[in-house]
Amino acid sequence: MGGNTFGRLFRVTTWGESHGKALGAVIDGCPPGIKLNEDEINKELSLRIPKSNGLSTSRKEEDRCEILSGVFEGKTIGTPISILINNRDVDSSSYEKIKNVFRPGHADYTYFKKYGVYDYRGGGRASGRETAGRVAAGAIARVVLKNEIKHFELLSYTKSIGGIVSPEVDNRSLKREDIIKDRLWTTDKTISKKMTEKILEAKSKGESVGGVVEIVARGVPLGLGEPVFDKLEADIGKGLLSIGAVKGVEFGGGFNLSGLSGSESNDQIDSKGFLTNRAGGIVGGISNGEDIVVRVAVKPIPSIAKEQKTIDIEGNERSIKIEGRHDPCAIPRINPVCEAMVAITLLDHLLIQKSIEGFK
Amino acid sequence: MGGNTFGRLFRVTTWGESHGKALGAVIDGCPPGIKLNEDEINKELSLRIPKSNGLSTSRKEEDRCEILSGVFEGKTIGTPISILINNRDVDSSSYEKIKNVFRPGHADYTYFKKYGVYDYRGGGRASGRETAGRVAAGAIARVVLKNEIKHFELLSYTKSIGGIVSPEVDNRSLKREDIIKDRLWTTDKTISKKMTEKILEAKSKGESVGGVVEIVARGVPLGLGEPVFDKLEADIGKGLLSIGAVKGVEFGGGFNLSGLSGSESNDQIDSKGFLTNRAGGIVGGISNGEDIVVRVAVKPIPSIAKEQKTIDIEGNERSIKIEGRHDPCAIPRINPVCEAMVAITLLDHLLIQKSIEGFK
Amino acid sequence: MGGNTFGRLFRVTTWGESHGKALGAVIDGCPPGIKLNEDEINKELSLRIPKSNGLSTSRKEEDRCEILSGVFEGKTIGTPISILINNRDVDSSSYEKIKNVFRPGHADYTYFKKYGVYDYRGGGRASGRETAGRVAAGAIARVVLKNEIKHFELLSYTKSIGGIVSPEVDNRSLKREDIIKDRLWTTDKTISKKMTEKILEAKSKGESVGGVVEIVARGVPLGLGEPVFDKLEADIGKGLLSIGAVKGVEFGGGFNLSGLSGSESNDQIDSKGFLTNRAGGIVGGISNGEDIVVRVAVKPIPSIAKEQKTIDIEGNERSIKIEGRHDPCAIPRINPVCEAMVAITLLDHLLIQKSIEGFK
Amino acid sequence: MGGNTFGRLFRVTTWGESHGKALGAVIDGCPPGIKLNEDEINKELSLRIPKSNGLSTSRKEEDRCEILSGVFEGKTIGTPISILINNRDVDSSSYEKIKNVFRPGHADYTYFKKYGVYDYRGGGRASGRETAGRVAAGAIARVVLKNEIKHFELLSYTKSIGGIVSPEVDNRSLKREDIIKDRLWTTDKTISKKMTEKILEAKSKGESVGGVVEIVARGVPLGLGEPVFDKLEADIGKGLLSIGAVKGVEFGGGFNLSGLSGSESNDQIDSKGFLTNRAGGIVGGISNGEDIVVRVAVKPIPSIAKEQKTIDIEGNERSIKIEGRHDPCAIPRINPVCEAMVAITLLDHLLIQKSIEGFK
Repeated sequence: MGGNTFGRLFRVTTWGESHGKALGAVIDGCPPGIKLNEDEINKELSLRIPKSNGLSTSRKEEDRCEILSGVFEGKTIGTPISILINNRDVDSSSYEKIKNVFRPGHADYTYFKKYGVYDYRGGGRASGRETAGRVAAGAIARVVLKNEIKHFELLSYTKSIGGIVSPEVDNRSLKREDIIKDRLWTTDKTISKKMTEKILEAKSKGESVGGVVEIVARGVPLGLGEPVFDKLEADIGKGLLSIGAVKGVEFGGGFNLSGLSGSESNDQIDSKGFLTNRAGGIVGGISNGEDIVVRVAVKPIPSIAKEQKTIDIEGNERSIKIEGRHDPCAIPRINPVCEAMVAITLLDHLLIQKSIEGFK
Repeated sequence: MGGNTFGRLFRVTTWGESHGKALGAVIDGCPPGIKLNEDEINKELSLRIPKSNGLSTSRKEEDRCEILSGVFEGKTIGTPISILINNRDVDSSSYEKIKNVFRPGHADYTYFKKYGVYDYRGGGRASGRETAGRVAAGAIARVVLKNEIKHFELLSYTKSIGGIVSPEVDNRSLKREDIIKDRLWTTDKTISKKMTEKILEAKSKGESVGGVVEIVARGVPLGLGEPVFDKLEADIGKGLLSIGAVKGVEFGGGFNLSGLSGSESNDQIDSKGFLTNRAGGIVGGISNGEDIVVRVAVKPIPSIAKEQKTIDIEGNERSIKIEGRHDPCAIPRINPVCEAMVAITLLDHLLIQKSIEGFK
Repeated sequence: MGGNTFGRLFRVTTWGESHGKALGAVIDGCPPGIKLNEDEINKELSLRIPKSNGLSTSRKEEDRCEILSGVFEGKTIGTPISILINNRDVDSSSYEKIKNVFRPGHADYTYFKKYGVYDYRGGGRASGRETAGRVAAGAIARVVLKNEIKHFELLSYTKSIGGIVSPEVDNRSLKREDIIKDRLWTTDKTISKKMTEKILEAKSKGESVGGVVEIVARGVPLGLGEPVFDKLEADIGKGLLSIGAVKGVEFGGGFNLSGLSGSESNDQIDSKGFLTNRAGGIVGGISNGEDIVVRVAVKPIPSIAKEQKTIDIEGNERSIKIEGRHDPCAIPRINPVCEAMVAITLLDHLLIQKSIEGFK
Repeated sequence: MGGNTFGRLFRVTTWGESHGKALGAVIDGCPPGIKLNEDEINKELSLRIPKSNGLSTSRKEEDRCEILSGVFEGKTIGTPISILINNRDVDSSSYEKIKNVFRPGHADYTYFKKYGVYDYRGGGRASGRETAGRVAAGAIARVVLKNEIKHFELLSYTKSIGGIVSPEVDNRSLKREDIIKDRLWTTDKTISKKMTEKILEAKSKGESVGGVVEIVARGVPLGLGEPVFDKLEADIGKGLLSIGAVKGVEFGGGFNLSGLSGSESNDQIDSKGFLTNRAGGIVGGISNGEDIVVRVAVKPIPSIAKEQKTIDIEGNERSIKIEGRHDPCAIPRINPVCEAMVAITLLDHLLIQKSIEGFK
């Protein structure tokens, strides 16, 4: 049982239900002596917050965190950092009506069957809101990584939404500060507009859409990742696949590599470095010094107003239309969550690698 | 450091280099009282062995295992099961010539940079040969799962090779005994022939190819998987991404879901069960009783005879043509490895779930 | 790094510094469907609270907990239970004076050397106050164990204080409700009085005292404990040795067994069961159905008013007299902490054992 | 289930039954680039071997190990080190007679009740022979520690046997090379002779004896140990309590501290360092740079020729006299096992600490 902790040396435990009193995270294993304050965490939390642009939920999630431990006189002290985020503006009334009816695509059914009980309000623990704790922990990981690695950068951008695919870009030129200015975190204003229309169209039909997000980590030191089971891909992949809406993950060339020849797939090397980065920065499970490039498939939000067949808690056939405040698309709110999982994994592996290097 | 153990309650530790004395696995946490013998493991190991069909390496890997502990009078006794597989027919001479030259697409470079030393012979620990230990452990997991679950079935089949895609099949009708008869583990003789030609063509050009494999687990009980980080997808995904050649993984509809609408993506339910299985049998990280369906992207074998640019251990530019006994395609040898990782993960989660159920 | 999590299936993570905003625990892996409320936890927390009897600190620790997650409609739901305990009546002024001077017997020196920084106020994370989170988690474990095991009982009593040893009792007859009525948790009023005098005498001299506590767990099912490293003794022992003041631990006959002969040490068996319990209920690392009996050595409180030699943060020799609100003896405040660690370990092992039994 | 792995970054997994084909260990996480050969391991294994002095079993345990992986060209390469020790001179005939009768003080009963099956031959997995794998792993840990720490020394000596207590010595002056020359690993020839007589006397009566062993680790760097649950005492204590015959463990002053006053128990400090070492080198769970001093209580060997009451597998009352080749005392064969567990734990914590230091 359990499963609410991620990482080995940098360990993140999250807790909290969507409509409970609060949610939070305990971060254990953060190196000591690093400047940290609530603002840096709140800044990241705000990226996960719905904007008032008609594209996402109108729930007012303030999501201001409080650091309860592990930081003294503005610096980390090596003890666990406890982050508290209070739940405000919680309105469970819309869930009351459907509390015994399993929402298709949601975890109601599996939670109920696994545990015999579940908190039906807002998805309970299975809510996307659970990811606030991840983002808080990821913000801390990012601070530590930036502090330790001179040119570290970690960003994500939207590759596609609802089947509308963004034109190819050279991901080496992207800057996070630019991307997050776009309300859909795309790299192209024209495509952003089309995607917005797609989302609004879906919403008007009582539907939702999904998409693909690419995460890029720059400056990652050579040597991170532990053969054979704790390969860097395996751990980053696990982190990303632990996000509720993610149904696929691929590194570098990913699924496309399966159709190429060996010489098209291999990254050749000369004295200046790798000539290409089809591996996505990881070979043999170990970072090779190139950018880590990973993409995730995000499924459409399962909460839709369109009528769907389902059953209730007693097995009776029912039909359901899900009303209330729901985003028609998880992107771009999911983007900082993806970044958080990558940041946490990278820091965990950096700590592990430091232990080897300590012996050299 | 480390990283050679997988699982929490059913724990698999593998060890061994490709050209070392032997390799093996220690399986800890296998339930007691289960009939087990070496034949059942050897049968699975033989599926990973190259066939004399011109498609794969001519290295004679006998891969007969020896059970050194944990089994007494034909039954498991709850203590660790140590599996030994001797390395025979090892010929390291072809590696001697290129021992200081990093092979593109291989882990030579990253291992050397990470550890400062590496066993250059046959890829050392990063060799595909490492997966023999996984297959042995997976064979044991399969025995336990079959013993415990009445209609358990676990199979894999080849979806594509070198860009040649197999026609859609209803994966609920597939039987492992049929699939493994085909030398490429496809579901269609015509496509198998085309794929064979593609592989031979690649080989003749000094090239290699990759492909896509789908794994299906049938009969998996409802309720496996631990929210939120140890979701069943996250752990199966980690297991599959820990296989050297795998660069992507997707569940159910996978990346295709990203282009669908919510109503196309959700699996509706009626009193007989789910109407579809776009989720691949996992919702909210917990198995829903449907077939677990997961696909992996397998990159082309990096060892190719075609000339490639690289550098040597001192940073000098070199060109390399990799000769010796190399498969032009990792499929279908990788297929039983994928199944093994799924079997190990499912058993681990079944054990965890039993502990909850023990309290009901 | 890290180290703030205990257990495998029942996992307890504690956080918080003595004079920080709050402290708490996250309990992951608690079985679902179990009635739980804050009162049951607060009742245990109150046992750790100093009584107004002149024997312990006058700091008013209210220690009323708040359950922030994991409980819905009065029952556990299988998700992590987050416990918050606010720090009130915090007065750090007495620490301000000695903030750069390492208190002998305290962890100031080792924390500072390990982390480069430390929270000097009230011992920070190394404070006995940290154990509140353990007691809260232990209270939950106790509820689950009582719910699951018909005649489960877990108690502790004071064997000695400051060299004054309690007369031998038959620990099978003890009841917790009786013991906790005594202000020193002894089994004998006369000895309790003598111990009180000893403590007051020490206090008057600016000194402190230690003692020995025995913990007894009754009704523990046969079969708990995992050979070979996770023996029940090993895990209970680890849990108890992780309590700051504990410097020794022994099971059953303990150190006395080292002077006996084999026939005096072995527990013989007849058809009614074991004739003796010198093993303390654990053989081969596995519970044998008898009472678990374990004793801990508690060192004297290191905070004493008597002058001591030490150094400051810059290495200068200093003398120190520690004033402020300090207990002269950790007993009996440490007793519920010891019970908590035993309860947590037993439940963790019970969960593990349930997974095996699930296969029978 | 499981429990056969110890450590987090330096991870030791042991396997093997007493009368099985072989036993061994897999050591994962050993730093790369360290010279290692089988001789260094065999030397330690030989210390665990019974001497032909009438004091211990006449089973000829050759215990020569074979390194099957993880070492290349005489150096560790960062991959798992697999150690194989074949079982030779196995004679299971004496166990055949008593295979259905539970030997008092042995794990037969608890293993049978836990697993439903057990390997009755020679104690199976619960045999002292299991510790050979620990000693092999400990030998590797010792090599790494000596390589890394200039003045590292790790030794153990016998404090008492059968109630005969060795006179106090200044443990700072002891050298391992001297101690292991004595056949009982004592520090005093006279006492050694008395202890030998005591053992022989016990043996002649069909009895056995126990004792106390002290382990001393010198040169351990300041800062090892992770608050709060993974304190250095907690992890060393767990390691020692995981040895079958150990029923108690104490650090520094240990149980005696419970009778002292605070000023007698605290280690004061001046500019040259600590004035005493009553803490046994660990404060707040973190090493303070002083010698680590820890003692274990070793129970008498449970296999005795004297008649004892017991039951058989069907619950019938039986009497048993255990014949065959049995030591009358686990000391000094257990001494190198204790050292091994301390070495493994120290290296594990050193690796963890290196990861923190890597950030400074």
